[in-house]
Amino acid sequence: MSSFRGGWTNQAQIREGARFTPGCSGSAVWAAHTPLAQAHNLFDNASTCTIATELQRIGYFGSVPANYEQNPLSAHFELHIEQRKMLQDKNKQIGTVINIQGIRWYRVTVEGQRAHAGSTPMADRADALAIAAKIMVMLESRAIEVSAVATVGVVELERPSSNTIPGFAMFSVDLRHPSEAALTEFEASVQEYMNSLMAANGKLKCRMVRIWRSPAVTLDAMATACTRRAATRVVGSHDVVDMISYAGHDSALTATKIPTSMIFVPSKDGISHAPEEFTSEAEWYVSYIS
Amino acid sequence: MSSFRGGWTNQAQIREGARFTPGCSGSAVWAAHTPLAQAHNLFDNASTCTIATELQRIGYFGSVPANYEQNPLSAHFELHIEQRKMLQDKNKQIGTVINIQGIRWYRVTVEGQRAHAGSTPMADRADALAIAAKIMVMLESRAIEVSAVATVGVVELERPSSNTIPGFAMFSVDLRHPSEAALTEFEASVQEYMNSLMAANGKLKCRMVRIWRSPAVTLDAMATACTRRAATRVVGSHDVVDMISYAGHDSALTATKIPTSMIFVPSKDGISHAPEEFTSEAEWYVSYIS
Repeated sequence: MSSFRGGWTNQAQIREGARFTPGCSGSAVWAAHTPLAQAHNLFDNASTCTIATELQRIGYFGSVPANYEQNPLSAHFELHIEQRKMLQDKNKQIGTVINIQGIRWYRVTVEGQRAHAGSTPMADRADALAIAAKIMVMLESRAIEVSAVATVGVVELERPSSNTIPGFAMFSVDLRHPSEAALTEFEASVQEYMNSLMAANGKLKCRMVRIWRSPAVTLDAMATACTRRAATRVVGSHDVVDMISYAGHDSALTATKIPTSMIFVPSKDGISHAPEEFTSEAEWYVSYIS
Repeated sequence: MSSFRGGWTNQAQIREGARFTPGCSGSAVWAAHTPLAQAHNLFDNASTCTIATELQRIGYFGSVPANYEQNPLSAHFELHIEQRKMLQDKNKQIGTVINIQGIRWYRVTVEGQRAHAGSTPMADRADALAIAAKIMVMLESRAIEVSAVATVGVVELERPSSNTIPGFAMFSVDLRHPSEAALTEFEASVQEYMNSLMAANGKLKCRMVRIWRSPAVTLDAMATACTRRAATRVVGSHDVVDMISYAGHDSALTATKIPTSMIFVPSKDGISHAPEEFTSEAEWYVSYIS
């Protein structure tokens, strides 16, 4: 039954979207989530070329429209490693995904006032990094409160120097939750917190810009039932379990247009997108014959 | 009266120690605060040469011992711009420095566990940057509490990626207070806080290493009286004021060995070590004739 549709654009072992950020851009265009021109114009990390110029260079700039209406599919089934260790811990062989959590990426900037570390009293400061740290602490405690996950993976300062109060800080936020409404509420609470910081210090400017999102989706009941039934037939019901996907997938995008289902197989210790990522051949095989 | 001893090693317009960090290394060696070999072996920012090899290259590697015993001075008087705007705000012409606050520099490292931003629940994380942010927030609130100044001017992550929980973070701490005891207490409180963070999460390792210090000193009463008397004679007592120095100076090092005094002149808007730094010729002249 497995009809894994390989060849989605812009994927890599280390990270989806490793060279052209964000990932899953092929399925995002297909599902009309991202305009084609926007995906074509994505620059690579070194800012030396775009997806379009690279596709042309390697002879892969095809003529088939990347669009769910002009190039339709009747359903989409995706095999994937779990990327957590629930299957390993519960000693199960197959997970059928019923829900994919939504992802939102933000770029937060804090503008303060660059000043001398020794001669500027604490009360006179507009320390961009100290404010950024407060926002990071808020993100973590709020995520715990509302069962979201929030991650700051990149932080950058302008002309960092150990005896200078940072005047400008930028950081990334990766926010995930199974409910779109919860994500929107979370976003509003961060904005509100930044407003209160700005109200307390007139020299500060905080700004949060959403740069990407992958929608939170509930996968199609019939497609999921197919997957569950097939998996049960191969490994027995005791070895199959319903799951939520916490990472983003092409399926999150196809699911907005057509019946979609995902199968998860165990991933050793939950490590993924790293050289240590491991799923045995036997574990994969079970998902292929399902 | 001014006997400014120019030519201290390793100073620059933009920042003392701009090329070879930390600054004031000449006076630090002279005052036996830093061993000669350690100063000679300081690498420049580009890690291409050391102070010793550069001194040799430009023909300045002299034979006079850089040591307060073999190359003694009877006293040390230093002219400097204020680097804050107290003189400007109070409309005074001369500050006589009675106290130089101590400075300690630290390198703090947080080792956590690199993991996937989407699939790692908040409770399972050892997020090096989230922990670093907590320490930064603690540094700020503690500094306000004990009238110190604390600054994090540099923060670095290992292989930063927006959808990866940082596994390793490093940041600098610049801590200043007029009392050595207060600095030592502050240092202990940070260590205690890091211990509590490690106790709460077994996957964490936080480490704080002191990489440099400039001692907190009270300047010699007689040398300071000389400066105050001379300044009063030139501009009148209404234009002279006693002050604390919040930045580090060569005088902080010479003061540990010989009678030392400093004169401050106004610096426009308190900006220093930046192209905007400005003190008028007339303001300088007053300090020279004092």
